[in-house]
Amino acid sequence: MEKQYVIGVDMGGTNTAIGVVDARGTILCRSKIPTGNYATGEEYAKVLGATINKLIEQNDLKDKIKGIGMGAPDANMHTGVIEHAANIPWAKNKPVPMADLLTAETGLPCKLTNDANAAALGEKHYGSAKGMKDFMVITLGTGLGSGIVANGQLVVGHDGLAGELGHVRMVRQNGRVCGCGRTGCLEAYCSATGVARTARELLEQYPERKTALQDILHRPLTSEDVSKAAEQGDELALEIFDFTGKMLGDAFCDFITFSSPQAIILFGGLAHAGDLLLKPIEAAMEEQILTMYKGKTKIIISQLNDDEAPILGAGAIAWE
Amino acid sequence: MEKQYVIGVDMGGTNTAIGVVDARGTILCRSKIPTGNYATGEEYAKVLGATINKLIEQNDLKDKIKGIGMGAPDANMHTGVIEHAANIPWAKNKPVPMADLLTAETGLPCKLTNDANAAALGEKHYGSAKGMKDFMVITLGTGLGSGIVANGQLVVGHDGLAGELGHVRMVRQNGRVCGCGRTGCLEAYCSATGVARTARELLEQYPERKTALQDILHRPLTSEDVSKAAEQGDELALEIFDFTGKMLGDAFCDFITFSSPQAIILFGGLAHAGDLLLKPIEAAMEEQILTMYKGKTKIIISQLNDDEAPILGAGAIAWE
Repeated sequence: MEKQYVIGVDMGGTNTAIGVVDARGTILCRSKIPTGNYATGEEYAKVLGATINKLIEQNDLKDKIKGIGMGAPDANMHTGVIEHAANIPWAKNKPVPMADLLTAETGLPCKLTNDANAAALGEKHYGSAKGMKDFMVITLGTGLGSGIVANGQLVVGHDGLAGELGHVRMVRQNGRVCGCGRTGCLEAYCSATGVARTARELLEQYPERKTALQDILHRPLTSEDVSKAAEQGDELALEIFDFTGKMLGDAFCDFITFSSPQAIILFGGLAHAGDLLLKPIEAAMEEQILTMYKGKTKIIISQLNDDEAPILGAGAIAWE
Repeated sequence: MEKQYVIGVDMGGTNTAIGVVDARGTILCRSKIPTGNYATGEEYAKVLGATINKLIEQNDLKDKIKGIGMGAPDANMHTGVIEHAANIPWAKNKPVPMADLLTAETGLPCKLTNDANAAALGEKHYGSAKGMKDFMVITLGTGLGSGIVANGQLVVGHDGLAGELGHVRMVRQNGRVCGCGRTGCLEAYCSATGVARTARELLEQYPERKTALQDILHRPLTSEDVSKAAEQGDELALEIFDFTGKMLGDAFCDFITFSSPQAIILFGGLAHAGDLLLKPIEAAMEEQILTMYKGKTKIIISQLNDDEAPILGAGAIAWE
């Protein structure tokens, strides 16, 4: 019998979402377990495996599952190992061979990749990149991730860890300190946290300026705050998006010299800003791109549902 | 009968070199025609086709040739068209469907790509990248070119024009004007011409400094001049290589976040500087690279012969 379904597992910092997905991208049924509170990776894998087995059994899907695809931080696609996910106690500083563990628990083949690569496969199978052989997805969440597809295949590199475009250095002198310990990385500017930093910097620089953002400084500023203010015409908020979009546009000009993608698809919280972000990106690209690439690469906001996309994307690895 | 040979054609600015290559990378026989003095691309293709036909006939190779591979400036791998090679009169501002023209003249399948992609295929089939699936070649000639291989395949992009890493912007403020009309591109610093510019800038900055380079300023300074001086311990010359290598190393850190290659192979005139260039590249990478990639990507000087490599590389396209 043909295996018509895959299991998509999205391992987030707090929860792990599990779903059964069909070839058209419909999630048949789903479940959820906490990610963090286990002593070891083996224990987590046991609970996750049991949850998957139960989902299969309850929905009468035995022998209909092609495999498990899992999106996880610092996942190595070649080895199926979570190398060291700093934010998850049982995976910190200790490689966990998650694919092998899950196969042992479920009897199903299992592949792992990081969230951004999963997002790219999600777009390829179910989203804006259907039919494209060369594109990339930029995830604009707490950090900035990237999944690159060239010649129809994920670019994962010789060690399975390619696609860390959040750590391309955009500011080589006096750049912001990045979470990676270096300075000037794209992620330190163009992510939800980067946008909040830009907001705080500009507020400190122009404390007398009238802006709605001033009133919410009593709590940590989010990129949604900036979006809302910008939509109401707040000048400082608009300036923040101009700054962020310009840097993304400059970075995209460099990315395009690498793989000349048909599209760059933006996914994640910050991408919800839509035109507020797209317009300055496109303006920077129009001005800065190498002539031979001018007007060729589309910048697209992902149309996939935030809640479903990580499961779809993770599951898509199992189709590949 | 199995076709055991390919024709490699390297179209340079002045001459076009043609060779018959076997599977092991031996050039059996070769020929040469001038590149420039034709009224049209059709005329050039006629002469080139006749030369190929003669080479085949004289060496009794009829029915033994798998195809023609050609390296040419601004060549589009998808379409086989030379899009517009600014330095060649008959190709300036006029696309020439070279692959189709050559097939019409010779009856052989023909594929085109640019010089740097050809260099990458040369390394893959005959050079340092044998057995590697993820690597890139950086050509350090008059300009800086790049050929990227990921998952064992050339990255050519949706339009066939990917891999222009010479035009990644390294200096975003007050950068040098580049041949592409933009500023701050890697090529404007890290190429034979870039090195000569660095030399002139430093000589102007420190006119009183003792250096062998001062004595040869009556003619255009070349990167060989700088190499020679550096080998004799000339401090200014060493400083020029440190500057050039550091920028290349910084750029490589960014390139690695993209495709995590097993090796970056340096080819072309400037690569002959060897350790003078390698040491500062490696020092910059050691200091700047993202921790997850540390110590993984080898930087290698190409071992292929300068005179043979372009023919081998071009021919290799026909094996693919």
